[in-house]
Amino acid sequence: MGLAVSTAASAKDDWTLVIHGGAGVIERDRITPEREAAVRAALRKAIDAGSAVLDNGGKAIDAVEATIRVLEDDPNFNAGRGAVFTSAGTNELDSSIMDGATREAGAVAGVTMTRHPISLARAVMEKSPHVMLSGDGADAFSSEHGLEQVDPLWFRTEERWEQLQKFKADHKALGDFEREVKYGTVGAVARDMHGNLAAGTSTGGMTGKLYGRVGDSPIIGAGTYADNRACAVSATGAGEFYIREGVAHEICARIRFLGEGPQEAADTVQAETKALGGDGGVIVVSHDGTPAWSFNTPGMYRGMARKGSEPRIAIYGDE
Amino acid sequence: MGLAVSTAASAKDDWTLVIHGGAGVIERDRITPEREAAVRAALRKAIDAGSAVLDNGGKAIDAVEATIRVLEDDPNFNAGRGAVFTSAGTNELDSSIMDGATREAGAVAGVTMTRHPISLARAVMEKSPHVMLSGDGADAFSSEHGLEQVDPLWFRTEERWEQLQKFKADHKALGDFEREVKYGTVGAVARDMHGNLAAGTSTGGMTGKLYGRVGDSPIIGAGTYADNRACAVSATGAGEFYIREGVAHEICARIRFLGEGPQEAADTVQAETKALGGDGGVIVVSHDGTPAWSFNTPGMYRGMARKGSEPRIAIYGDE
Repeated sequence: MGLAVSTAASAKDDWTLVIHGGAGVIERDRITPEREAAVRAALRKAIDAGSAVLDNGGKAIDAVEATIRVLEDDPNFNAGRGAVFTSAGTNELDSSIMDGATREAGAVAGVTMTRHPISLARAVMEKSPHVMLSGDGADAFSSEHGLEQVDPLWFRTEERWEQLQKFKADHKALGDFEREVKYGTVGAVARDMHGNLAAGTSTGGMTGKLYGRVGDSPIIGAGTYADNRACAVSATGAGEFYIREGVAHEICARIRFLGEGPQEAADTVQAETKALGGDGGVIVVSHDGTPAWSFNTPGMYRGMARKGSEPRIAIYGDE
Repeated sequence: MGLAVSTAASAKDDWTLVIHGGAGVIERDRITPEREAAVRAALRKAIDAGSAVLDNGGKAIDAVEATIRVLEDDPNFNAGRGAVFTSAGTNELDSSIMDGATREAGAVAGVTMTRHPISLARAVMEKSPHVMLSGDGADAFSSEHGLEQVDPLWFRTEERWEQLQKFKADHKALGDFEREVKYGTVGAVARDMHGNLAAGTSTGGMTGKLYGRVGDSPIIGAGTYADNRACAVSATGAGEFYIREGVAHEICARIRFLGEGPQEAADTVQAETKALGGDGGVIVVSHDGTPAWSFNTPGMYRGMARKGSEPRIAIYGDE
């Protein structure tokens, strides 16, 4: 399911922001009116935070970070507060960010005490010689560099805890549980007035995940990619398949090498990933500011804003 | 520096194997004759192991694993035994493998007790629902699935230990030391008689690495990629830049979308990665069995074999 918009090149001072809060079996009869209203309000709050940055002439990378920080604090999404639990009953957070102007990138996997993993990914990008840090080392880097630290209980919500208990009681295969609910991951892509792109993604991963499993969210080229020559992408879905396809990099490659628009590229890569076995969704903004989203699940929490237009917020596939 | 070979399509029962053992400042006046002879013999032993699999009609993925296991056991290379030390004085090993026929993949980061990390990456691919495991969880998976466990001292060589002491004494910036010596990583790519491709990479990372740093070697799309529609790639170099470029996936994308040959694609992507700031090298085999290598360092430990031809082993850039 895609987003029909004008593909006309943007004016120089135009900006675009697209966000997601997870894809999956999101259907009207599975969500209470109260939950639906809360999710729409949360998506709107996040898109407003990023839009404010862009409308003031700010940078795409700042807008992406500001947007995702709001989503990380909101317990409705599987990132930061409200992250799902691992099989060990812990919250282990993954995040990545990329600047399309420089193709600089930062990523963290398995962090446990940083309130805003997206800001830690950015710190890795800006304050270390590395792209990706994991586990205890990433936690240590976070603390040493002054990122806000929280008690791990900060991330805990009762709903997520109950999901882990249900997962364990049902002895389901890894991943089955998530597929029935949704791939909760948050992300944002932006093009700023200066023509620069950025992308970011943040997640708690999969309920019941084992063995230090790393999904696509912190993998540059899989869950996140940004390149001013092509597009910015953030993905949410069955991470293993998104890694094997190289979803975010592949969408950018199709735009760059085949001249496809972002909708065509996103739809094609989603179909290829589905053929490998993976459900989920992506958001894209192309170098000229054209937004797109594409998902093969019943719904995706999502939103879009452009300079001078009312933001659009959507949840179900038919919106 | 590339490899001039026939680009004619291979016969159906042809096979190709290309290997590397690291790129960097590999020059005649920096290497003793004894070391040079030892490295050439080790490369030959590895290429013979993979060639035997392929010549018997075996699978590309089996040849890649067999080749890399030999290189992991050899202290001349920075993978398995002879891996470089982290700043904490430990050996933390990264590896990945991918099957071009199915695009299934496996990867591990930061493992400490598995003799053959490439075989662990393959076990993740075949025996878990995941693509990538890291840290303690990857060690636990390894032990539970019967991979050969070794005392961490197995990996230690005095030469690598001295390199860490020199690194610490010089207070060099992370990465500088490696750049002066070489990016020691091993890898192999193969096309079997059945027309299937595979790629694998294994490394100890960078001397003095900190903070659970993850380089490109275990990142599917950066250090390793295989896709029967295009090519198989393994990279060795300044991992952060190889991640940002998405080197292995990018080479395959150029072959698939632009119709480039493997040499042209490899040279172009190496030049782009160099423009971002990263040195190193890649090995490639295309869907039709054409081999290529490309590196922008003075040398790269490397070798190539095809059915019915004498294997070629090389170290310096002018060979």
